Amino acid sequence: MKTNKRTVFFVSDSTGITAHTLGHSLLTQFDNLEVHYTSLPYIDTLEKAREAVEKINQAAQQAAQRPIVFATLTEIQARALVATSQSMFVDLFGAFIEPLEREFQMKSSHAIGRSHNIRDNVSSYDTRMNAINFALQHDDGASLSRYEDANVVLVGASRTGKTPTCVYLAMQYGVAAANYPLTEDDVEDLSLPKTLQAFKQKLFGLTIHPERLQQIRQERRPNSRYASLTQCQIEVQRIEALYRQAKIPYVDTTTTSVEEIATLILQRIGWNLR
Amino acid sequence: MKTNKRTVFFVSDSTGITAHTLGHSLLTQFDNLEVHYTSLPYIDTLEKAREAVEKINQAAQQAAQRPIVFATLTEIQARALVATSQSMFVDLFGAFIEPLEREFQMKSSHAIGRSHNIRDNVSSYDTRMNAINFALQHDDGASLSRYEDANVVLVGASRTGKTPTCVYLAMQYGVAAANYPLTEDDVEDLSLPKTLQAFKQKLFGLTIHPERLQQIRQERRPNSRYASLTQCQIEVQRIEALYRQAKIPYVDTTTTSVEEIATLILQRIGWNLR
Repeated sequence: MKTNKRTVFFVSDSTGITAHTLGHSLLTQFDNLEVHYTSLPYIDTLEKAREAVEKINQAAQQAAQRPIVFATLTEIQARALVATSQSMFVDLFGAFIEPLEREFQMKSSHAIGRSHNIRDNVSSYDTRMNAINFALQHDDGASLSRYEDANVVLVGASRTGKTPTCVYLAMQYGVAAANYPLTEDDVEDLSLPKTLQAFKQKLFGLTIHPERLQQIRQERRPNSRYASLTQCQIEVQRIEALYRQAKIPYVDTTTTSVEEIATLILQRIGWNLR
Repeated sequence: MKTNKRTVFFVSDSTGITAHTLGHSLLTQFDNLEVHYTSLPYIDTLEKAREAVEKINQAAQQAAQRPIVFATLTEIQARALVATSQSMFVDLFGAFIEPLEREFQMKSSHAIGRSHNIRDNVSSYDTRMNAINFALQHDDGASLSRYEDANVVLVGASRTGKTPTCVYLAMQYGVAAANYPLTEDDVEDLSLPKTLQAFKQKLFGLTIHPERLQQIRQERRPNSRYASLTQCQIEVQRIEALYRQAKIPYVDTTTTSVEEIATLILQRIGWNLR
């Protein structure tokens, strides 16, 4: 099958994060597609919209096939202008705003850049920023750990993805997530470390294939006992046995992304999106 | 104006992150709207789709107005089923997949959960995870700082938002972002600290209103010299003077979110989205 090469623009009057997220999601549905992404954020005047059209048209002239433009433009005139570019114009706001206006029987504000703006929701923004500080202060079993303030405490062997997951939960959802690294010694008698026993309801376990764990550890401390396959196998086996025995829910991170792990954790703790 | 109360569902065969992002963006365009969000991720069988319909219909019966459903369902039968729920069904994939199929003259894969999946793009996932480690290892001027490996080095007074911005750049874009806290002493003679001089091209400054800085520091170390308004004013003034003198681009984080700051930085360093 022939590969289809396309230049893809994300055009927004704000950050373009929404256009990127949905555009990327849609395009991953096509195999044999080779895309080159360009983001044109903060297109918030007609003058900038004109410049955006020029850039898109330049790309159109240099390519065999017309560019794809994913747009989140709240302002109708700017939207109409960018729609005139030599592209397939995918209007992510226009397609839905009018049906929603009819549904709610109210006009949309056409206000720019609301979704990633602090002003409209100071308290939820502060919650996220505080959660990031919490995640970093309670990373890797840090001694100042106040697990009573945590919404969730991730446990798992060293290098199973606890830190990125905690940071993601904090950044995206404002979840206060701590993490505690389980060692071979910790689980020798198949019982939870004392520090964790009082917080059993908040625990969520991560595990990983020993071969993958070995690879990751090898990059960190080449040829150490820590990075040996035997060591990884023993740790993973004992820790999984502990999860089952202590009835701690867990997920294998070998082929699961932080976004997917975070989603499973939110379901588990019954977290309400804001 | 009367407030419109709505239950909003994000229904996805994967994480639901895309549905949440666009749905939230659209709804922030309406004032006087009181929403309650519920995420229904991993709706990847017809049986689960039936359960989702039941949940939506239950919510419909309990509410004065029908729920709004934002769906990213790749599988056509599941999509058709959820569309029968007593809701305003907003089909984020269906609306665009067919036009894109015509444009590319190829069928979409209808494969579930591609956009947040590791398997389809291991290298870009690993880049992001490594970037998070980099951000944490090079946080707050950590001594092991290897700025030659950084894509960007954020500078600014303590508590101006450097760490969350670095973490966000790493998590979302795989940008290796380090940060260095500027102190009053650092900028006394309006020259850059030695550690930073060789990396001037990579520097990006953050600043903040002194009053807001005082608030944030006050929470951290109440009634300290560090948190006094005078101290905050002196630091901010000197650091901004240094930015201008050394021609370091900078942004005021007082009313700018990490998403917005990150977007400005990506533009500045000419980062290509993947």
